[in-house]
Amino acid sequence: MAVPGRNSPPAALSRREYSLLNALLTRGGRKRSGRCRCEGVRAVRELLAHCGGLVDFVVATERGLKALDRPVNSPRIISEKEFESCAATVNSQGVIAVARIPEPPDTAPAGDYILALDRLGDPGNFGTIARTLLAVGGRELWYTKGSIDPWCDKAIRSGMGSQFALILRRFDTLGELRDTALRSGFPNFFIADPHQGEICFECPDLFAKSVLVIGGEANGATAPPPAARQVIIPMPGNYESLNAAQAATVLLFEAVRRRGRFKEQLS
Amino acid sequence: MAVPGRNSPPAALSRREYSLLNALLTRGGRKRSGRCRCEGVRAVRELLAHCGGLVDFVVATERGLKALDRPVNSPRIISEKEFESCAATVNSQGVIAVARIPEPPDTAPAGDYILALDRLGDPGNFGTIARTLLAVGGRELWYTKGSIDPWCDKAIRSGMGSQFALILRRFDTLGELRDTALRSGFPNFFIADPHQGEICFECPDLFAKSVLVIGGEANGATAPPPAARQVIIPMPGNYESLNAAQAATVLLFEAVRRRGRFKEQLS
Repeated sequence: MAVPGRNSPPAALSRREYSLLNALLTRGGRKRSGRCRCEGVRAVRELLAHCGGLVDFVVATERGLKALDRPVNSPRIISEKEFESCAATVNSQGVIAVARIPEPPDTAPAGDYILALDRLGDPGNFGTIARTLLAVGGRELWYTKGSIDPWCDKAIRSGMGSQFALILRRFDTLGELRDTALRSGFPNFFIADPHQGEICFECPDLFAKSVLVIGGEANGATAPPPAARQVIIPMPGNYESLNAAQAATVLLFEAVRRRGRFKEQLS
Repeated sequence: MAVPGRNSPPAALSRREYSLLNALLTRGGRKRSGRCRCEGVRAVRELLAHCGGLVDFVVATERGLKALDRPVNSPRIISEKEFESCAATVNSQGVIAVARIPEPPDTAPAGDYILALDRLGDPGNFGTIARTLLAVGGRELWYTKGSIDPWCDKAIRSGMGSQFALILRRFDTLGELRDTALRSGFPNFFIADPHQGEICFECPDLFAKSVLVIGGEANGATAPPPAARQVIIPMPGNYESLNAAQAATVLLFEAVRRRGRFKEQLS
């Protein structure tokens, strides 16, 4: 991997743009600027499709722009060699967008449930969960402090930019998250637990205006707030525990299955 | 990451052992020796629990051996610094086992279904699917040529060593895989398709002695053999497609849900 920032900026990029591109690889850089990097063909397509107005500028090679196959406002075209000094991945697809991180709207959350991630540390898991939530038509993805920044470049790549199509809300604690959910009309609060709880396939109100909490990989969720209910995903193999993204997937598709009306979705 | 093989072997390791450790990072090295590397605390535990007899030797730091918390036959104890020259990961857990790759038994496959991966290229996905299959109590994981080697170190880390508890069978083509399944008493053959097919939640014989094929990330499965049926996972979000590991998870837990008898599993 080329180390960004070691070279002078490519001719097509201003020094400010080049510095920003590098700074956005750090959490501090994203916080200061309120921006993030979105790298790769599918992620940038998702960004342009859902939040084109957030894009500051797109850096691409000729090859990357061709693969993107979408209209881009004055792209900064650079050479493959120059791109190496900008890319965060080894086998780059030749396109990076710099975009503002969207603010969650003030409107109340809609839908039957809210998916919440508690101290989820792995960017690949966060991104995969975001992508899966979008696939099932979900909108609200809430998370607590101690989780990986969902706007870091790895989480965006892994989520293929699905973050831009979702509403992400961050909370300091699980208790604060629970209070906000309650005020927003989501009274049920379920925490996925590997050892005990109501069985997810049998729990009747699992998606009745509820919050579904998936805990971090290493430690599980933090101490549950009052009136939280545990829900368990049965595992006949008696294996230690599921990957967090797999646990989220089981719950999200259980909601799809219960809702039915499959034919409508295939038209 | 330290580049293995640049230094002379640690005192606790013979030159042959040290060379082997490095050679096993390549597919050629694994093929020649019939062995693989298994790195990390959970992966080595899984290996010792299921296939302790396959282990050639274990290399560990004092810290790694303590974290492993399992009896090990004459471990090669090395320093943290020496371990860096052996490890494939940056934040290593201080334990690597070298083990023979198990041969699949000649016995016919058991169970209601066989999970099959067709040209699945991503080691993280392969490992996650193996881990999830083990969690639902499955045993048979078949795959076609063109898939990532499930015994590469990345797939083993991602699978946390679940490969050792499963029966993995490799086939040159999907047709050959299908023929073997047929001869083994698995006549139904389903291929997960992102665009069309029978709906997975409604297909009555999805787990009636069947093969469930998940295609590779980029290209999907190869041309289906005769009499293959397509099965679709409904996605209300109309998103392009699910990650392969998420698709496998949905099908595997649909089998769990249909089988019922959840209470038994929680005892």
